Amino acid sequence: MAERTKLFLEDLAQGMRFTAGPLRVEAEEVAAFAARYDPQPFHLDDAAARGTLFGGLAASGWHTAALTMRLVTEALPFAGGVVGAGGEIRWPRPTRPSDELRVECEVVGIEPSRSRPGEGWATVRTTTLNRKGEPVQVLTARLLVPRRPTHGTG
Amino acid sequence: MAERTKLFLEDLAQGMRFTAGPLRVEAEEVAAFAARYDPQPFHLDDAAARGTLFGGLAASGWHTAALTMRLVTEALPFAGGVVGAGGEIRWPRPTRPSDELRVECEVVGIEPSRSRPGEGWATVRTTTLNRKGEPVQVLTARLLVPRRPTHGTG
Repeated sequence: MAERTKLFLEDLAQGMRFTAGPLRVEAEEVAAFAARYDPQPFHLDDAAARGTLFGGLAASGWHTAALTMRLVTEALPFAGGVVGAGGEIRWPRPTRPSDELRVECEVVGIEPSRSRPGEGWATVRTTTLNRKGEPVQVLTARLLVPRRPTHGTG
Repeated sequence: MAERTKLFLEDLAQGMRFTAGPLRVEAEEVAAFAARYDPQPFHLDDAAARGTLFGGLAASGWHTAALTMRLVTEALPFAGGVVGAGGEIRWPRPTRPSDELRVECEVVGIEPSRSRPGEGWATVRTTTLNRKGEPVQVLTARLLVPRRPTHGTG
């Protein structure tokens, strides 16, 4: 990753795409995440999960979000890293244990910051796909991106 | 928790509030979460974090989200558990290692599902507060809640 050119706000354009993955989701990790952060039967016990709308063991949506963030840090070569202020998140279907995830990130908006002259906002829509290519998460996030430093002549 | 009455969609009303916490955020857990899911300098190394807009070591926003989910599962006594389809998330300020979080959940909307006659949607705004009472996350989520089962007479 070190050799990749870091992108500043001026380098971004609407429609630019970045990808990363696959990342395998181990059953043990699904269980450990759920035990700490989302201890509900459909995330912990396959038999209990069969009787719910999940129809079987499912990763916590927040685990899908965390795994997505890992992939986004690999996908986006933004100067200053991946710093989000928030966004909108949807989970069209659950992530399953032993699945593999990949992400497709698309720049859908760019605007300079009004309060921070050295920075701006990139709106990035990240679709997280399972092994079958089905979306398990769609996240539209506002990310803070530095502007290219200017070198004064005076 | 087992003795708490479980709430169905019919039991909910706009303005109902639920709380949980505090939950302590250990520095080791902040580092472990970041190493796996958000391996960026401002989440991993205090010295590196000082030079960033975080001004010091900060938990990943997704860690704040995961810890919030833990507290929400304790706060909301919904029949069927806490099942979200998505929502809007904002992080007004970072969670710091060794902080303590609590949540305030408020029902801000209720509507029957058009496609699922036995269920409906509750919109719940969850504010996650640090030890000083400052919001570190505001999440407005749509949660699937079962309707009270009816017992036919025929």
